Amino acid sequence: MQLNLDRIRNHALRNRIVEPEEAATWISDGMTLGLSGFTRAGDVKAIPAALVKRAEKENFKVNIYTGASMGPDVDKYLTEAGIINKRLPFQAEPVMRKQINQGNMYFTDQHLSQTSEWVRSDVLPSIDYAILEAVSITEDGVIIPSTSVGNSQIFAEKAESIIIEINLAQPEWLEGLHDIYDPGQQGSRKPIPLVHPEDRIGEIGIKVDLDKIKGIVFSNKLDSASTIVPPDEETIIMANHLLTFLREEIKAGRLTEQLAPLQSGIGTVANAVFHGFLDSEFNDLVVYSEVLQDAVFDLMDAGKIKFASGCSITLSEKAMENLLTNFERYVDKLILRPQEISNHPELIRRMGLISINTALEIDIYGNVNSTHVCGTNMMNGIGGSGDFARNARYGIFVTKSIAKDGKISSIVPFVSHVDHTEHDVDVVVTEQGYADLRGLAPRERVGVIIENCAHPMYRKQLWEYYTEALTRGGQTPHLLEKAFSWHTNYQTKGTMLMEEKELAEVEG
Amino acid sequence: MQLNLDRIRNHALRNRIVEPEEAATWISDGMTLGLSGFTRAGDVKAIPAALVKRAEKENFKVNIYTGASMGPDVDKYLTEAGIINKRLPFQAEPVMRKQINQGNMYFTDQHLSQTSEWVRSDVLPSIDYAILEAVSITEDGVIIPSTSVGNSQIFAEKAESIIIEINLAQPEWLEGLHDIYDPGQQGSRKPIPLVHPEDRIGEIGIKVDLDKIKGIVFSNKLDSASTIVPPDEETIIMANHLLTFLREEIKAGRLTEQLAPLQSGIGTVANAVFHGFLDSEFNDLVVYSEVLQDAVFDLMDAGKIKFASGCSITLSEKAMENLLTNFERYVDKLILRPQEISNHPELIRRMGLISINTALEIDIYGNVNSTHVCGTNMMNGIGGSGDFARNARYGIFVTKSIAKDGKISSIVPFVSHVDHTEHDVDVVVTEQGYADLRGLAPRERVGVIIENCAHPMYRKQLWEYYTEALTRGGQTPHLLEKAFSWHTNYQTKGTMLMEEKELAEVEG
Ligand SMILES: CC(C)(COP(=O)(O)OP(=O)(O)OC[C@H]1O[C@@H](n2cnc3c(N)ncnc32)[C@H](O)[C@@H]1OP(=O)(O)O)[C@@H](O)C(=O)NCCC(=O)NCCS
Ligand SMILES: CC(C)(COP(=O)(O)OP(=O)(O)OC[C@H]1O[C@@H](n2cnc3c(N)ncnc32)[C@H](O)[C@@H]1OP(=O)(O)O)[C@@H](O)C(=O)NCCC(=O)NCCS
Repeated sequence: MQLNLDRIRNHALRNRIVEPEEAATWISDGMTLGLSGFTRAGDVKAIPAALVKRAEKENFKVNIYTGASMGPDVDKYLTEAGIINKRLPFQAEPVMRKQINQGNMYFTDQHLSQTSEWVRSDVLPSIDYAILEAVSITEDGVIIPSTSVGNSQIFAEKAESIIIEINLAQPEWLEGLHDIYDPGQQGSRKPIPLVHPEDRIGEIGIKVDLDKIKGIVFSNKLDSASTIVPPDEETIIMANHLLTFLREEIKAGRLTEQLAPLQSGIGTVANAVFHGFLDSEFNDLVVYSEVLQDAVFDLMDAGKIKFASGCSITLSEKAMENLLTNFERYVDKLILRPQEISNHPELIRRMGLISINTALEIDIYGNVNSTHVCGTNMMNGIGGSGDFARNARYGIFVTKSIAKDGKISSIVPFVSHVDHTEHDVDVVVTEQGYADLRGLAPRERVGVIIENCAHPMYRKQLWEYYTEALTRGGQTPHLLEKAFSWHTNYQTKGTMLMEEKELAEVEG
Repeated sequence: MQLNLDRIRNHALRNRIVEPEEAATWISDGMTLGLSGFTRAGDVKAIPAALVKRAEKENFKVNIYTGASMGPDVDKYLTEAGIINKRLPFQAEPVMRKQINQGNMYFTDQHLSQTSEWVRSDVLPSIDYAILEAVSITEDGVIIPSTSVGNSQIFAEKAESIIIEINLAQPEWLEGLHDIYDPGQQGSRKPIPLVHPEDRIGEIGIKVDLDKIKGIVFSNKLDSASTIVPPDEETIIMANHLLTFLREEIKAGRLTEQLAPLQSGIGTVANAVFHGFLDSEFNDLVVYSEVLQDAVFDLMDAGKIKFASGCSITLSEKAMENLLTNFERYVDKLILRPQEISNHPELIRRMGLISINTALEIDIYGNVNSTHVCGTNMMNGIGGSGDFARNARYGIFVTKSIAKDGKISSIVPFVSHVDHTEHDVDVVVTEQGYADLRGLAPRERVGVIIENCAHPMYRKQLWEYYTEALTRGGQTPHLLEKAFSWHTNYQTKGTMLMEEKELAEVEG
């Protein structure tokens, strides 16, 4: 273990340095751990690795609370080691996903702003150890987080004991970037005094009871790089549809050229659509988001974004390299906050965000499934999409109109799982166009969604369903016995597409 | 038309008095009207009646925005007159419901805190006339609302013109009860300075541009009485389960005997369950709710509730008589606010409400349908239930375990419409017991819901579904081809209950 004592500026804490392997022995079967880390950024690395090693010889299971998804060191290897009993509130790891879907571990999928409330008010089983990555500890013992804040502050406050992982690979200039604010208990809490994304309302690090710090370990490893892939032809078209929509809003006098604070969700599609601002006329935009992905930094370089507030920085290898080299360019344009602040309903509503998240599938009435493939298998989790879509001024969902080479239509008669109800879905964007659903009754939504967003190969089939459903009436006409037939067709025949002769039969 | 000029203390406005029939002629085909009124309370009465008369001889249609549901004068008779093109954001009227479900008029079902945002930011078609019931107009021309505030403030601000209906049947002591606060535009808005339900943050009435007041009419008619029926044996048992849950929370140290501000939804069941506090040990509770129904006043009489903030007072005839006679007993224990304040995510989250709303059906994973019978036919609307359930500290849903003499199970494999996702449903209460779902993964929720909440006559059938679904795996195991079979059975055979031999076949 490589040390750097300068990173522990509080001298009294220097005698708490231990090897990760030793710290790992403190953790026993049945414990609950609260780990730093949000979408791979700032996750703890050394102690999870030591736990994996321990698991080779020993049987034990722990509950793991995090900010969001972690790098492979945590989510992949701990899963493979079989030591996770329950995991919350978000994950995005293929091996873990498989174990969850096979029922080998529990996954509690939560709105990312809510985990902290439940930890604070003792609803969830209490945390034995908070294990937090830091870049340094100040003279006063304040813990400076690294590339994410996540739930670290509340984990540190509520945990029985704390272990710090000082990661030497995380740059020291991160100190000063964070803004740590604790809203306090519900019921005796004051208004959160943040009105602009740039506002600083808290401290530069996490203040803890120093007696609770049981050990400090060192690590030296960058965050796992993000796995998003670059924009493609279709996401570029989607971005253009989104820009068209925003221009229409400006024309209608509802937005100015400054737009409103932007939020963009995780994943390839949301990142790519965000990227579309690069070739736009918009300048000096402000971001109030959760994860800051590659696009944010590219847009800063291009003068399109002047400021970004988030709760984590999750980058591809190349983008991370650029940030590490050219940090002076970005450092005063960034704030990292606890996820309950980046995702807080109070703030999202107050600032009136434009919120862009990705759907797996959307139905003809505008309900969105972001999580469950065929209603059953968990993809990642709802993440912050519910915090944003419900409270934002614009709840925008993007998706390609088809998946798996057209075997799946992302526009379906009835989504097989609902994460976002029609009430929270204002605008839908696919590579086909955009559907502005605001103020429309369910029957008015159908045509706009099918004609503007569905892939042409599925439009006829969608109209067939709706036309037949209409004969039965209702505010939201449906044929319950056929509502999921597209999904069961996909499961049994490998495609949602009906053959011409089946369609002909339906048409009678 | 009976006049009382004392109710118009601003003399300059006295020459704007007209007959309702005259005011009704100002409204022309295609216009949009913003009406006062929230769950029957404080709805305008005279002008809608005049419009109905006009419709006997003339063809025209208007869009109608309100606070929530209105009395028959608006929602029933205007529907029967066939003059509504689109109605939002909530209704609860059998005749209107039928027309909506037959596709004869559009209904846009909205979160009740959101309509004002969409009016304010010009997303919805603009309002030609705001028509508002008032008890009086002050010297300064401030409009004093009656038994509800609803969306009146924003309608008045944004409408082209305003018509006031001074209702002489509404008592003058209502002046001083209201607290009218306008949060302002998203993006340039300040924190809402309300931290306790008792806080006053605004004005006693609605300030308007006096030039916009085109006419003042008089009416003299009490609000239509609420149609809720008194508690029955089952709702008393449900109330006891709720109280048991709250006592467990106190024992666990998560609540004190003061509990937290309470919200209770509309309808018979929520009112009856709320009533259950009458025989409890709790005293001096505080209510921060939307509609104040009968139970609130009974609980005040009993010293159980010391203060109630709402956006409307909707009472049975008897309870209204009592309030009118004994108003001194209640007047300083009440505040009425705009619905965007009573239902504001910022405030609901800050104060950490205990929120009790009613479900039509709930599935084995905790998703809730509050609106659509068999996924298709609108009952009332989502109302404020989404504002509360998402942001409250406790999102509690109550329902009887069966409906229609057992032909319907309110606990089903897959809800036929989702209004509230499992993320927002913390506790489910039926007459069978309560299920505390907080922190549970989907597979953990199933047993608790079936065993504690489903009716015994349906438990075996629910287990059958789940057990078979489990063989296919997944985070949320389902059999998509059978997910709605309970509903289709009800539609085709008149009951969700499978016969013994069908069950035996399933069991193989
Ligand atoms: C929805 C989500 C999975 C999309 O991720 P993405 O990286 O942008 O999207 P991709 O197009 O690469 O799709 C991911 C996979 O889903 C598949 N997919 C897409 N639509 C599908 C559908 N309707 N049914 C089944 N699979 C589908 C894709 O084929 C792809 O599969 P692969 O990994 O085998 O190639 C992701 O955004 C997510 O988890 N969202 C929920 C949480 C969230 O929104 N958080 C943001 C809050 S800030
Ligand atoms: C859900 C809701 C309709 C229940 O109303 P209620 O008066 O408490 O409930 P009731 O038990 O009287 O049920 C109303 C009707 O629904 C029927 N019903 C109940 N469960 C049903 C089900 N699963 N399927 C079909 N019908 C059902 C009842 O039989 C009854 O029918 P009837 O009018 O023909 O007698 C009502 O609370 C509502 O509209 N909620 C949504 C809005 C909301 O929650 N607002 C509050 C925010 S503050």
